[in-house]
Amino acid sequence: MNIVLLGSGNVATHLAKALKAKGQTVVQVYSQHLVNAESLAMQVDAMAIDDLSNVYQTADLYIIAVKDDAIESVAAALKDVTGLVVHTSGTASLSLLAEHVKKAGVFYPLQTFSKIKDVVFDHIPICIEASDIHQLSTLQQLASKLSDQVLELSGEQRKILHLAAVFACNFPNHLFALANQILLKHELDFNIIRPLIAETAEKVMTNLPENVQTGPAIRNDQTTMEKHLGLLTNEPELQDIYQTLSNSIKLMLK
Amino acid sequence: MNIVLLGSGNVATHLAKALKAKGQTVVQVYSQHLVNAESLAMQVDAMAIDDLSNVYQTADLYIIAVKDDAIESVAAALKDVTGLVVHTSGTASLSLLAEHVKKAGVFYPLQTFSKIKDVVFDHIPICIEASDIHQLSTLQQLASKLSDQVLELSGEQRKILHLAAVFACNFPNHLFALANQILLKHELDFNIIRPLIAETAEKVMTNLPENVQTGPAIRNDQTTMEKHLGLLTNEPELQDIYQTLSNSIKLMLK
Repeated sequence: MNIVLLGSGNVATHLAKALKAKGQTVVQVYSQHLVNAESLAMQVDAMAIDDLSNVYQTADLYIIAVKDDAIESVAAALKDVTGLVVHTSGTASLSLLAEHVKKAGVFYPLQTFSKIKDVVFDHIPICIEASDIHQLSTLQQLASKLSDQVLELSGEQRKILHLAAVFACNFPNHLFALANQILLKHELDFNIIRPLIAETAEKVMTNLPENVQTGPAIRNDQTTMEKHLGLLTNEPELQDIYQTLSNSIKLMLK
Repeated sequence: MNIVLLGSGNVATHLAKALKAKGQTVVQVYSQHLVNAESLAMQVDAMAIDDLSNVYQTADLYIIAVKDDAIESVAAALKDVTGLVVHTSGTASLSLLAEHVKKAGVFYPLQTFSKIKDVVFDHIPICIEASDIHQLSTLQQLASKLSDQVLELSGEQRKILHLAAVFACNFPNHLFALANQILLKHELDFNIIRPLIAETAEKVMTNLPENVQTGPAIRNDQTTMEKHLGLLTNEPELQDIYQTLSNSIKLMLK
């Protein structure tokens, strides 16, 4: 398949590299900033462009991997292409594309992508959506080359999944960062809690999180919770987070 | 070493089994409820007791692994023993024991223990504390048999570590549970987000969480955050958590 990648951020980067590794051909990489397009294009032997009017009109697939609020303007520039145009967003609807292009779809890999860490796609859920059965089949075939977890989801389901992902990934990562802040202030190293973080994730690979909750809140251990709040006296923001999440854990007791 | 274990909960259970596996002898297991004491004692070939006046007075080590607010009453019952008495709490101070027993210490394994999952102690940080250098050395030797991560921490440092652990383990696990609630309501399976949770933890094994934060809040993607809050209209508690954590992530942008 000849693929044009529109975007040069985390998702675009990991997707382009994974597609290339699976024998697909990335012909162009577009970014508003040529230097970004070039940096990614170089890695996948593609041409870099920074002007949407230079996009090849005859590629098989156009993958729009830009910020949600930029999807529509990129799609508008692809109104004449005959290939399938997909976006990679968890929240944007299919119709956002369908209003502009001839063949529209969604190709949403459910994973957290950072440029500084490589990602193995093998088991990453790839959520696909299209209004036409042939286009769905095209996406199914492509997604299957990258991963053994291909899910055909409705737009509503995909949005729910994206929301759940914020709770399961973005928020926990931030809590790791707050833990590190607390440790740093007392000259303790983040390394000390890495085994705990690994085990916390490991536990829910085979159990449901509801069944393996530990800590003072689920024991309703008021003394410990008060001591912890006392240690955070000068950090009202952390106190607020501590209270909010502990109260939510206690609701599970009922 | 002859060891008496006072407690039969998660920490007591995993510790007793790990000590036994490393060639130590657990001579007695105490619990208020004989059936609980028996259940653990059976697994480590120990005697079960439910009366503190029946505790052997001549063991080498007494490990108090009970709820924080029960530590003192158990310690009071050990005032005549000559062996070293430790507790396993992240927040209770050493003096809580030192007021009652002849030789006092702390033996705090930093991990999340659930009865339904076995734990490998090899790399679990074990935090030790004692007022006497000989007792510290005893704990150091014992801890080294279980783990290659033995840390001599002050009571203050241990309390901070325990607080950080709540942020790095208990709260993230609860967020996994909330993600599951969201998925369940829309008939989506928790399995879909397991690879995401695994990768989220995996990423911070070699990076600091501050450097790998992803999601709408760190991009300050207001449109997506508003859509997410809209999906939670009927769940004010989840909206509150979403807002609180997103605001905290945005503070990192500054």
